[in-house]
Amino acid sequence: MVSLPPATAGNNVNNKTSLVARLLSWLKDTLKKLNRNVDRITTITKKLAMDDPRRVIHSMKVGLALTLVSLFYYLQPLYDSFGDSGTWAVVTVVVLSEFTVGATLGKGLNRVMATLTAAGLTVGTHHLAILCNKVGEAVVIGLFVFIIGATSTFLRFFPIIKAQYDNGLLIFILTYSFITISGYRGETNIIETAHMRLSTIVIGALICLLINIFIFPVWAGEELHNSVALNMEKLAHFLEGLGALCVKLTKVEDNSKDENKSSSQAYKSVLNSKHMEEMLANLARWEPRHGHFMYRHPWNQYIKLGGLTRQCAYKIDSLNAYFNHDGEISQSFEEEMREACTKISLESSKTLKELGSCLRAMTYPSSLVNAHILRSKEAMESLKTYIKSTSLNSDDQLLQMVPIVTIAFLLIDIVDYTEKIAASSNDLAALANFDMVKVIKSSVIVYPEVSFNEAIEQVSGVDCSRILIVDTD
Amino acid sequence: MVSLPPATAGNNVNNKTSLVARLLSWLKDTLKKLNRNVDRITTITKKLAMDDPRRVIHSMKVGLALTLVSLFYYLQPLYDSFGDSGTWAVVTVVVLSEFTVGATLGKGLNRVMATLTAAGLTVGTHHLAILCNKVGEAVVIGLFVFIIGATSTFLRFFPIIKAQYDNGLLIFILTYSFITISGYRGETNIIETAHMRLSTIVIGALICLLINIFIFPVWAGEELHNSVALNMEKLAHFLEGLGALCVKLTKVEDNSKDENKSSSQAYKSVLNSKHMEEMLANLARWEPRHGHFMYRHPWNQYIKLGGLTRQCAYKIDSLNAYFNHDGEISQSFEEEMREACTKISLESSKTLKELGSCLRAMTYPSSLVNAHILRSKEAMESLKTYIKSTSLNSDDQLLQMVPIVTIAFLLIDIVDYTEKIAASSNDLAALANFDMVKVIKSSVIVYPEVSFNEAIEQVSGVDCSRILIVDTD
Repeated sequence: MVSLPPATAGNNVNNKTSLVARLLSWLKDTLKKLNRNVDRITTITKKLAMDDPRRVIHSMKVGLALTLVSLFYYLQPLYDSFGDSGTWAVVTVVVLSEFTVGATLGKGLNRVMATLTAAGLTVGTHHLAILCNKVGEAVVIGLFVFIIGATSTFLRFFPIIKAQYDNGLLIFILTYSFITISGYRGETNIIETAHMRLSTIVIGALICLLINIFIFPVWAGEELHNSVALNMEKLAHFLEGLGALCVKLTKVEDNSKDENKSSSQAYKSVLNSKHMEEMLANLARWEPRHGHFMYRHPWNQYIKLGGLTRQCAYKIDSLNAYFNHDGEISQSFEEEMREACTKISLESSKTLKELGSCLRAMTYPSSLVNAHILRSKEAMESLKTYIKSTSLNSDDQLLQMVPIVTIAFLLIDIVDYTEKIAASSNDLAALANFDMVKVIKSSVIVYPEVSFNEAIEQVSGVDCSRILIVDTD
Repeated sequence: MVSLPPATAGNNVNNKTSLVARLLSWLKDTLKKLNRNVDRITTITKKLAMDDPRRVIHSMKVGLALTLVSLFYYLQPLYDSFGDSGTWAVVTVVVLSEFTVGATLGKGLNRVMATLTAAGLTVGTHHLAILCNKVGEAVVIGLFVFIIGATSTFLRFFPIIKAQYDNGLLIFILTYSFITISGYRGETNIIETAHMRLSTIVIGALICLLINIFIFPVWAGEELHNSVALNMEKLAHFLEGLGALCVKLTKVEDNSKDENKSSSQAYKSVLNSKHMEEMLANLARWEPRHGHFMYRHPWNQYIKLGGLTRQCAYKIDSLNAYFNHDGEISQSFEEEMREACTKISLESSKTLKELGSCLRAMTYPSSLVNAHILRSKEAMESLKTYIKSTSLNSDDQLLQMVPIVTIAFLLIDIVDYTEKIAASSNDLAALANFDMVKVIKSSVIVYPEVSFNEAIEQVSGVDCSRILIVDTD
């Protein structure tokens, strides 16, 4: 045997140490990376749970429903009567476990109706098919599956059906093909099978529904209601910031301006709220009476109100662009103009905030809304007069004036929209039988320029006939 | 027997005739109503089919896939090897039959991965559970189902997971609970069952996928690509109409104005395109290389480009409001102003149209784009100079001028956006390795004021290094 030269042996040892060292450092790095990733995921998880604790509750509810439905297998008497059909209850629970009650109910009703229709059609197809011989039966079944599959798939393109019955049609195709095709090899009684499956599906759906409705329910209707109110409040928040910006700009505080800017950009989410609102309204239609919401609550009116709020948000977005592009614009505001713009911003902000909180409280828009609209309109008139009365001499002034006047015009548009939103809120209150407002007279004292009755009577478009006046003096 | 008095008999006959008459008229009405409804449904159906004939093809494809998968039951050798597991192939086909390839592939991959993971975990749970006695087994299984069900449900709230793996997690929960729970009563071998189900699911998915990819495929990526291009063209169409409106208004033709208005309102759908584009981009990520689209095609860049187009649409919406509210605004346009606005509208329209058609053709933005941008910028400069040089004396003029100047400012913004859209299109072309443009020199002769090289070199933000110049003279 040849002994290794010492150098090579040393090399080997060196190699080994370096290999171990590299392995160790790799392990360290990996652990560090893993640690960072775990930290990141923990942070996201915490944030998701803190932002909306109902998510955690929903997850627990799904776990509970699954555990409950597994009793079909664990308990001998239940297993004896349902056998392997219990799996259908499991499938139903998983598929129906949606976040909102509306989604679960919609899917559940769709599922039951679809299964019933499909079962009926299957029995028909089966009776027709067994009139032929075995090959003919296969042809008839194949033909029916093709025709019904293709037709139902095409029906899913109809917008009305897509919005409310898409899931039902999917289940219909599924159940029909499933039972019809497997019925061809029907060792078991097809009606018996259909019956067993239907009852387990109904039981699964009931378990899911009861848990969803009675343990911390999340109602799609309430979500829509709150989201429309929140959107108004977001716009109000922006306008409040804008008003503050106009006031502060005489002192030219740039830092606070930036702060204000970032905190009031929440309105941007309103621009893209259409899809979400329509989806929630579709789900809400399935929900029964709950809390202050009736079965046929006017969900369409929420879509209209949300649409107006969104259009107002477009105006606000245009307005925002002027403050983003040219920070110096606002500094050339003249005192009178500045005052009017500030007043419009603040009053419109208060209008929207009040409308939002009235909507949240499910009452008619309060008389404060009218007072604020009235005051913003006054400011608007003085703004118009001011623009009319301003005479310009130098050319520079025109270029300086135009953005300012545009801002003024946009603010005027916003006043229009707040009035429309108020009228639409009022329509909603009438359609949904909202409570009358209890106005505490003394609370109006903060607006001394406008008398209370004036405030109520002068603003058109808002029906104040249902306002109860409670005098606390 | 008592014979009826003649009067009563006559009455009876009268009653009978009137009953028959009423029945007949009711039948007639019902038939008419039915006829009307059938007509209405036929019209909607025809419209749906004509608007996008791929809908009809898709429906046929689903029917075909269902018929094919039913061979699992009709053919003896197939039934002998798979037995009732063939139903899983049917379920898979129904669930995976989506309109776009991306949706089918995404769902399919999610389904297969989810089933594999769930099957693995099930085997683990099963091995752990059988260590206990029968009651302990039920408790262990129940506990695991609860924990895994709740955790997976919570994971579905993570935005990244929701966008791409939501369906996978649903299937994971479904399969895991399904197999684990039914495994408790395992008369059959659990691994055998899992294996059989997995293979039928894979076969079902393959049938669905092959039909979806090889028979008139609809690619989500192509849809996204075309929809972004179409949105640009919609904006172009509005601006073209606006330009025409500006020109025509000297002749004050109100009818043609109305016509133009309704036909150019298509841009409004761009305002709410965000959700659709993001969904298509998510689906497109699943799609393999097809046509000119690579596997890792820069779908994110489409989102950016779509976002810029949408922001431009917001500006256009503001612009539109001025023409909606005050028809008379445009009549007070002065000649020089009118000319500049017309030029900006038309040139921006041509820019967007050209960008749209270059995107459709998958080429770099052509030099025509640069020429149009250059010309719109020229018009913008002359507009700015005009606004600066205009001196105002009377107060009325200011109020008249402001909306016009605002329109001018909005048009200037739109020029900015078209330039940004062009730059973003260029980025997309670079990222996606689009073809170089073959510019036929003689086609530029229509723009005699701007020399060809000037057009290519002067406009910043658009990289023209890849433009091939083909001289046809």
